Parts: sequence; structure tokens; C-alpha cells
Amino acid sequence: MTQSAEPVRRGRGRRPTDQVRREVLQAAGELLLAEGMGGFTIEKVAALAGASRVTLHKWWPSKGALALAGYFSVVGHTLAFPDTGDIATDLTAQIRAFVHLMRDTRAGHVIPELIGQAQTDAELSAAYRERYSAPRRALAVEALERAKQRGQVRADVDSEVVVDQLWGACYHRLLIPDLPLTDEFAEALVANLLTGIGRP
Amino acid sequence: MTQSAEPVRRGRGRRPTDQVRREVLQAAGELLLAEGMGGFTIEKVAALAGASRVTLHKWWPSKGALALAGYFSVVGHTLAFPDTGDIATDLTAQIRAFVHLMRDTRAGHVIPELIGQAQTDAELSAAYRERYSAPRRALAVEALERAKQRGQVRADVDSEVVVDQLWGACYHRLLIPDLPLTDEFAEALVANLLTGIGRP
Repeated sequence: MTQSAEPVRRGRGRRPTDQVRREVLQAAGELLLAEGMGGFTIEKVAALAGASRVTLHKWWPSKGALALAGYFSVVGHTLAFPDTGDIATDLTAQIRAFVHLMRDTRAGHVIPELIGQAQTDAELSAAYRERYSAPRRALAVEALERAKQRGQVRADVDSEVVVDQLWGACYHRLLIPDLPLTDEFAEALVANLLTGIGRP
Repeated sequence: MTQSAEPVRRGRGRRPTDQVRREVLQAAGELLLAEGMGGFTIEKVAALAGASRVTLHKWWPSKGALALAGYFSVVGHTLAFPDTGDIATDLTAQIRAFVHLMRDTRAGHVIPELIGQAQTDAELSAAYRERYSAPRRALAVEALERAKQRGQVRADVDSEVVVDQLWGACYHRLLIPDLPLTDEFAEALVANLLTGIGRP
């Protein structure tokens, strides 16, 4: 990938802090999408945004944390978990959407690299959990708890474990790609859990 | 971590290729365990083993591939999946052992870093799947297929998907540590899948 972001036009005097911040995030997101984590450095973002490295280091504790913030700034992520009243329908729709996101969009390249970088970047790891995984986990757990109220899921089930067996199973194929992420996979994940794989 | 491997004694003439290879792998494994991927370079391994960088680059296509080979050389991994005749017992034992390995041993630091590095190192990713994840996946699938023969698992279940919902769920908590890996988690994973979480 050779395409990169254009430097922000300079020499027009001092910008307000909020504007600098927005332009830095925009530059960071575009650089990440264009070059991946392999070509992502705080120095390049500073140059593209016409900001100082010192400022960037002050605002973001690591290059991974800046990359993640830039990613959200450019791509955006809606936190939505529609509730049709049927947990099987809703979980299948959510997992299919996640599979689509990771298989068919740029997120499928960037998210694994960010998780990879997070293994040796504690600030990125914390930011990823705080801004991305934890709120999504909470939404899924709430949906499962509502399903318990409706009698669709057993009350003694730990909803957190279910999240790992649905989304975690997808991350597994994303990060260790022994097998592909498919729609059939998404459906089998939900069916296996709701029905059980044991002989009745 | 500051402790590092001792350089192999040098100046004793030309070693046979097999011996050089063994000593390089030993040095690579010790360096990885002492310093993690953050301090791991082909240059350091070459210096520690008294071998040439050119030789190392010839034998291993990337620093990640060398790190993984060194890890197996030092730590070793037995491929075992005991069969008691009861799939619930056997899966629980395997998952508990995996949780123990990742929570209580050095593998829990090294394996996430190797998977992280694999996201931007195609040779490491291929080596990880070939040498580690694929053979382990195959053993688990074989156990599930035997359980189908015994009537403990439904014949229409895709055993590959089950692997993602057990081991993949553990990797999820390992790589995105929103929640800890515990024995209770291991047991819930197996129970959720075998019994199902839906109201009967």
C-alpha cells in the first residue's frame, strides 16, 4: 500500500487545540489505513498533521494508542445491538455483521494488527479494551440477560462466557487463520451454543 | 527481564551444521524467554550462538519464525489428547490444561507475543499454524469425531467450529484480557456447548 494522507496545509497561524487534535486523529487514521501498523510512526503522523511530536506524545502514551484513536476517528463504530425479542435471531445478526466487518472491510486488516501490537504495548491494550472490546462485551451481555428474562436462555448461564464462545471464536479465526470466517460459521456458533452439541 | 543467555563458547573450530542449528535454536529460545519479542533480534541470536546472520536468515525466513522454532526447541510441547471414553471429561481436562499453561507458565507471556508478531509476519503466521495450531486442532477434532461414534456428540455438528468455541474462547481472554482465564471458565466452556444455553 503506497497511498498516504496529504499533509495538512500549514502556515496559517496557530490552530485551536481541538482542531489540532482532530487533524492529528484524522492523519493517524488515514496513515494506519494506508500503511498498516508496519508503516505507522508518531513521527509520520506529526509531519502529516503539522503538529509537534512532543504534543502527540503528551496526548497519547504510545503509538498504538494513537493508531487506535485515529482508527475510531476515521472509521467510526456504532454501538448497536438491535433487540427483536428473539435471542437466536439477534445473536446471529450480530455475529454475521462482525464476520462481514472482519472479512470484507478494512477493519479486517487493521483490527488484527492493533490486537497484535497490543501484545507488546500495554497502553494500546488498555485503550482497546476500554474503547472497543469492553463496551461491545457489555452490550452482548445485556442482550443475553434480557433473553434470560424472556426465558430463552437458562438463568444459570454465565453470559460473559457466551461472549467468548461467539465473538472470541471469530477472533480466533481472525488471528490464527487455520480456517476462514464464513456466514455458515457465524450461524453454527449460535446454533451450537443455544441447542448444545451433545446427544439429547 | 534482564537475564539473558550466555554466548556459546567460540573458537573451537568448525561445528557440524546440525550442532550449529541446535545451538542457534537453544539461543533463540532462551533469548525469547528472557527478553520477550521486544528484545528479540536475529543479530542477538547470531551473536549468542556464535553463528552468522546470513546463515540464520537462510534457515529461517523471519525473526518470528526463528523465535517460534527456538521456543519449541527450549519448551517443547507434547501432542497428547488422552481418551477416557467420555468427551466431557476429556475436553474439560484439555481446556483446563491449556488454561493452566497460559495462566501459570512462561507460555502465557510468549505465545501472545508470538501471535501478536504473526499479525505482521506472514512467515511466523504460517509456521505457527503449521507447527502449533493446526496439529492441536486436528487432535481435538479427532476426539470429537470419536465422541460422535460413541453417541456423545450429535453427528451433524461441525467439530471444527467446536474447537473455536473452546480453545478460541481461551485465546480471546488471553489476547484481549477483558476477563481472566480461570478453571471455572474452562468448565463453563465445555458445559455451555455440550448442554446448550437455551431453555429446554
